[in-house]
Amino acid sequence: MAWNFAAGPARLPDAVLARANAELFQRGADGACAIERPFTGPDFRALLEHARQRLSGLLDLPANYKIIFLAGGAMQQFSLLPMNLCAPGQTAAYANAGYWSVRAMQEASKQARTLEFVPPSSGVWDIPADCAYCHITPNETVDGSAYPFIPDTGAIPLAADCTSSFLTAPLAVEKFGFIYASAQKNIGPAGLTVAIIRDDLLERCPADLPAPFSYRRQAEGNSCVNTPPMFAIQMAAMVFDWIAEQGGLSAMAEAGQRKAAIVYGAIDRSDGFYQAPVPLLNRSPVNIRFHLVAPEQTEIFVTEAAAAGLHHLRGHAHFGGIRASLYNAMPEAGAMALASFMTDFARRYG
Amino acid sequence: MAWNFAAGPARLPDAVLARANAELFQRGADGACAIERPFTGPDFRALLEHARQRLSGLLDLPANYKIIFLAGGAMQQFSLLPMNLCAPGQTAAYANAGYWSVRAMQEASKQARTLEFVPPSSGVWDIPADCAYCHITPNETVDGSAYPFIPDTGAIPLAADCTSSFLTAPLAVEKFGFIYASAQKNIGPAGLTVAIIRDDLLERCPADLPAPFSYRRQAEGNSCVNTPPMFAIQMAAMVFDWIAEQGGLSAMAEAGQRKAAIVYGAIDRSDGFYQAPVPLLNRSPVNIRFHLVAPEQTEIFVTEAAAAGLHHLRGHAHFGGIRASLYNAMPEAGAMALASFMTDFARRYG
Repeated sequence: MAWNFAAGPARLPDAVLARANAELFQRGADGACAIERPFTGPDFRALLEHARQRLSGLLDLPANYKIIFLAGGAMQQFSLLPMNLCAPGQTAAYANAGYWSVRAMQEASKQARTLEFVPPSSGVWDIPADCAYCHITPNETVDGSAYPFIPDTGAIPLAADCTSSFLTAPLAVEKFGFIYASAQKNIGPAGLTVAIIRDDLLERCPADLPAPFSYRRQAEGNSCVNTPPMFAIQMAAMVFDWIAEQGGLSAMAEAGQRKAAIVYGAIDRSDGFYQAPVPLLNRSPVNIRFHLVAPEQTEIFVTEAAAAGLHHLRGHAHFGGIRASLYNAMPEAGAMALASFMTDFARRYG
Repeated sequence: MAWNFAAGPARLPDAVLARANAELFQRGADGACAIERPFTGPDFRALLEHARQRLSGLLDLPANYKIIFLAGGAMQQFSLLPMNLCAPGQTAAYANAGYWSVRAMQEASKQARTLEFVPPSSGVWDIPADCAYCHITPNETVDGSAYPFIPDTGAIPLAADCTSSFLTAPLAVEKFGFIYASAQKNIGPAGLTVAIIRDDLLERCPADLPAPFSYRRQAEGNSCVNTPPMFAIQMAAMVFDWIAEQGGLSAMAEAGQRKAAIVYGAIDRSDGFYQAPVPLLNRSPVNIRFHLVAPEQTEIFVTEAAAAGLHHLRGHAHFGGIRASLYNAMPEAGAMALASFMTDFARRYG
């Protein structure tokens, strides 16, 4: 058995791969398969509506929010978010909690004034009243850290890059003004970003924005301002179905906590052979980062892990070390296989 | 047998669908299939390089051009082209030859001054010397028209939306400064745009552009500034392989001319029952537009055609009537089935 712990593009559910294989390339009575049909036709429109309703159901989406499907990854949104929601000269606040929140702020700084701050550890944040929004990255994929709470930013809309934590637990959508998540962690294949926007914010989108980049135009146009990334949306709909079949986001969260406890347990029981640099309260349940106390053993670990069927464990170049990503599609057996290997490796090299 | 004449997303080659089905969803030794692997890893890098080399070979690409793979459709490029290549206040010239060239100009007008003109029928165009570039749409998908020549714009770089004609015939890349084509006609599934840019133009791209939208950053970053639409690129590579196996772009052009002659022949031999509104010299070989002389028979035609296995023939809402798209993946048998039906229908209703 081989396990893929990549941080994204990442493992997809077995059942979704099988379904995609069986359904997406089979031509129907019209001589076309799902990715060969007009996006303006009834088949794709029905699929899009199914995806939207399924996702609304999973999130228990309040009525005053719109779901939009956008081409490209989260990094495109780093720029499109301020383009859509900041008035000229307006400032946006960015909480610096790690690698990706800084990247988000750097790109936003090309489009608007940005105010960087270290996220306070309490749940109520005092954001200057003239800020267009406050941006957070609830789960830092590279750092392996996560917010233990969703901050209350009062009247300032909270905007969040939820890429790596999206759909891994119930989400209090009503606390946010704007949520975005690129697909390749928990939604589907790369090439798609799902965004959720509160209706009142749509009015901010400038009329002269490029049409495919305007949240308002995409919301009004049913995510079909131009040809959308149909395959990725079709796969996403299958992933949403799969999550619902598994019991929804509460079930995802419970399974996720179990998997995380298995791998963090192997770290914490290693007598310091493995070191998790993130404070206990901030540990990410989906991106588990650790180092070997003897860094020269890191390559041996990666090589032996691969030989044991445990792949794509090398940490992001920014930090080095090891990172194991345990998204929804990773079965508990994968986490157990990794923990067993870690314990055995520590015994042999410790 | 059912035939899909959709204008795009459109029919993919049978061999490519079969290959995608067989290859893309099968997990390898690392527990990951092609769309589950890191885009930074050796597998995807090799695939990307293969796609680039294969496309370079098909186009006989001059050494001073770069191929970049971008997320989204051609409409994104309507805005990104002026963002990348126009200096502040600079004008770009747009030849109005139909529906999509006007759309391109409308979006560009939000980003730069635009100069609209009717394309002269001679091959040398006198574009004002201060223009950043001259934009053309060599094949108008909605109008069903095509340029019979590539204009010579002298020192002004020629930029072209080649979406619907890309890879249907050899292309004199050296006549262009910038070429772009969204995938869903002749390249692969929706969600990807292929762009080709002359090296000297990369220097124009402003440093403060959003990183994923900067042609320079994407060229320097091997189209991997952020996670690219991997599935669409993987499918595109298979399509490039398939075209090469068929004999390359000359073979595509020969087959395309044969298919177009079959369908235009059915129009021209119908004694006016079918009317092709595009002048002979400008007829598109890939998007064949015609009307029934009795417009009230259009719906009957569409319905009976579908019953005969000929699908997605309804014309674009802008013009109505009928449109049959004959991209590379449409076998000659499809064109012949359509022509036979047309002749029979005209006999019965004429």
